[in-house]
Amino acid sequence: MKPRISVLTLGVDDLARAVAFYRDGLGWPTRGIVGSAEQHSAAAFFALQPGIQLALFPRASLALEVGVAEPPSGTSGCLLSHNVARREQVAEVMAQAAAAGARILRAPRDTAWGGHAGYFQDPDGHPWEVAWNPKWPVEDD
Amino acid sequence: MKPRISVLTLGVDDLARAVAFYRDGLGWPTRGIVGSAEQHSAAAFFALQPGIQLALFPRASLALEVGVAEPPSGTSGCLLSHNVARREQVAEVMAQAAAAGARILRAPRDTAWGGHAGYFQDPDGHPWEVAWNPKWPVEDD
Repeated sequence: MKPRISVLTLGVDDLARAVAFYRDGLGWPTRGIVGSAEQHSAAAFFALQPGIQLALFPRASLALEVGVAEPPSGTSGCLLSHNVARREQVAEVMAQAAAAGARILRAPRDTAWGGHAGYFQDPDGHPWEVAWNPKWPVEDD
Repeated sequence: MKPRISVLTLGVDDLARAVAFYRDGLGWPTRGIVGSAEQHSAAAFFALQPGIQLALFPRASLALEVGVAEPPSGTSGCLLSHNVARREQVAEVMAQAAAAGARILRAPRDTAWGGHAGYFQDPDGHPWEVAWNPKWPVEDD
């Protein structure tokens, strides 16, 4: 199996709310909600870097399709990290997330590994780390 | 905020077991466990496609660092999808995962959206979809 992830799907409690957060709050392009709520196929997709997409999918539909128990709302066993090119961009992105309605988990601070990072939580509890890592070059936006 | 994910971190109950699953079972290169268990910094990293890594991190350390509640072990609010180039590769990858100790959630079957997919669960309950999508070209391994 090659080391590859093609889609990361996040279970959400309210698909429209989640789409608004990522599309309007964070500014991520999307075609919006596709599929059918009645058929448990309603979802929204966001292109990330080439070859990988983020998908938002109702938690109940996800549990049904995959066959795993839903965790309690607001908890998450996955952390999503978003690296930025310059140290000051951490605070900029965190501010944008906060304005979009994210809950700030940890304000940006210097890290033990020589970088600078903060954490926020999307409306469904999925945590994001926003990080500058001097050893991880990122193309400046 | 640009649509970008740099690292996907999965919370695990047993870091060595998780590393063995991905490294030995699925064949994914890694430097193995780095950092310090005592300092809650022990983790393992796997390079996926360029610009994105998978990280394995003890659940308790993750909850401590990020400040979110741990979900119960064996549940997950995130689905990871791995697309393959050819339809028959779905079964091949599923078989490899099963041999590695994955729990098979759903055997491969044709999907409503015109593809072919199955699901397995890693030792920590994180679900993977293995999918062939005729509309999603993937470089053949």
